[in-house]
Amino acid sequence: MAAFVTTRKVLFQHCDPAGIVFYPRYFEMINSVVEEWFEDVLGHSFASLHMDQKKGVPTAGISVDFRAPSRLGEVLTFTLTPGPLGRSRIPCRIEAHGGEQLRLEGALTLVYVDGVTLKSETLPAALAARIEQP
Amino acid sequence: MAAFVTTRKVLFQHCDPAGIVFYPRYFEMINSVVEEWFEDVLGHSFASLHMDQKKGVPTAGISVDFRAPSRLGEVLTFTLTPGPLGRSRIPCRIEAHGGEQLRLEGALTLVYVDGVTLKSETLPAALAARIEQP
Amino acid sequence: MAAFVTTRKVLFQHCDPAGIVFYPRYFEMINSVVEEWFEDVLGHSFASLHMDQKKGVPTAGISVDFRAPSRLGEVLTFTLTPGPLGRSRIPCRIEAHGGEQLRLEGALTLVYVDGVTLKSETLPAALAARIEQP
Amino acid sequence: MAAFVTTRKVLFQHCDPAGIVFYPRYFEMINSVVEEWFEDVLGHSFASLHMDQKKGVPTAGISVDFRAPSRLGEVLTFTLTPGPLGRSRIPCRIEAHGGEQLRLEGALTLVYVDGVTLKSETLPAALAARIEQP
Repeated sequence: MAAFVTTRKVLFQHCDPAGIVFYPRYFEMINSVVEEWFEDVLGHSFASLHMDQKKGVPTAGISVDFRAPSRLGEVLTFTLTPGPLGRSRIPCRIEAHGGEQLRLEGALTLVYVDGVTLKSETLPAALAARIEQP
Repeated sequence: MAAFVTTRKVLFQHCDPAGIVFYPRYFEMINSVVEEWFEDVLGHSFASLHMDQKKGVPTAGISVDFRAPSRLGEVLTFTLTPGPLGRSRIPCRIEAHGGEQLRLEGALTLVYVDGVTLKSETLPAALAARIEQP
Repeated sequence: MAAFVTTRKVLFQHCDPAGIVFYPRYFEMINSVVEEWFEDVLGHSFASLHMDQKKGVPTAGISVDFRAPSRLGEVLTFTLTPGPLGRSRIPCRIEAHGGEQLRLEGALTLVYVDGVTLKSETLPAALAARIEQP
Repeated sequence: MAAFVTTRKVLFQHCDPAGIVFYPRYFEMINSVVEEWFEDVLGHSFASLHMDQKKGVPTAGISVDFRAPSRLGEVLTFTLTPGPLGRSRIPCRIEAHGGEQLRLEGALTLVYVDGVTLKSETLPAALAARIEQP
């Protein structure tokens, strides 16, 4: 399985009175990284997934350790690495670096669900294959 | 150590196109619960902590499992329960219920730091005593 | 027409690296004031409006002047005052004070729309009557 | 004075239960457009402005009309056009289009201030010249 790497710039809107990223904003960044991965690598934009296919991939759980603060103007490199797929679950490792320095690391689990009932469904084979491609 | 219980209403701004709480907004709610606990129970408002004392209590790590979705208009009951304190660390359990249903559960660790250097400092005895009061 | 008055506390999540409210957060506060007014005064919670009735009241335009900064921990008093109703439009004045000091003032227009087509519809007489009650 | 043009993609985090951009998120986008303009065109990143020079350019007022809704996945083109400068004030027109369709239009005023006192200061000649370059 291939790691997905992308960057996010720390904007004014991400920072708190201490001048560092307010941690809930990291989760907005992480969600946008997942969104970009789905669109650019997996071939399922969130627009098509939610609007056309009426499916969703909500986050069932997430665990993150913040190793060092990130400051306004920095460019963070996010690395998302999927792990062994479950029936409906997509476990991922997540990391972000600022330069060489680790800023956060953790794991999250996405679940493929019906967009109306929000019940989990078996991952479509084509989507699973895309996630598992090396 | 006493659990801190408070409520948050699910507002329009918390909800995503699926009509449920977008998970980064839960972290904004959790942060506001910590903020309310510090002000109302521990006697250290974030304003006095950050502005007057030049200290901070950033979140060093957080892990949350989302057990069921929450919808617009619901009132969620958050329960924050501190655990055994470290030198500078305040570990807490966090849960939120909608009615009887568990919506999320997890744990987070706050660290008492200098507001300028962001380096950890020993928890002041008075603050530790407030957290540990039954 | 009666003014609606409520308060919002300036939380950590509202503040920027300058230690003052980041102005997009004021619009989240204003939206939540409108939401509270609909539920508590007009008898149309956003949950019932959006989920049950499949209607919406998006903001068609808003203009705000920020008169003085607001800081972490302050309690702001918001005053929302509806003006003469249009067919589908609800014009409102908005102000926020911190103590005696004016922090922001402006105007916004809500439009009553179908929740699916997003096209404007005539305000239901019962809702209009509620807005116009003295 | 030259218009600054850039794009923003509508992400999941920008959208509300109606599946369209929640309007406070437009103000986050607009703020990030101003931030990009300062860094890429005016040669004053917000990091250097706030952290090194201890200055700021808060928004003193903003007025926006929302002409049509924007949906998940769309790419919006923002156009920011500065107008005649005041002593400390930078008035700007703002527009966003989705394809050919106007989505929002309005005006905002930035004020150059001291980062500590938040009092307005005369725009530095070099910054004013950058803004006024054709």
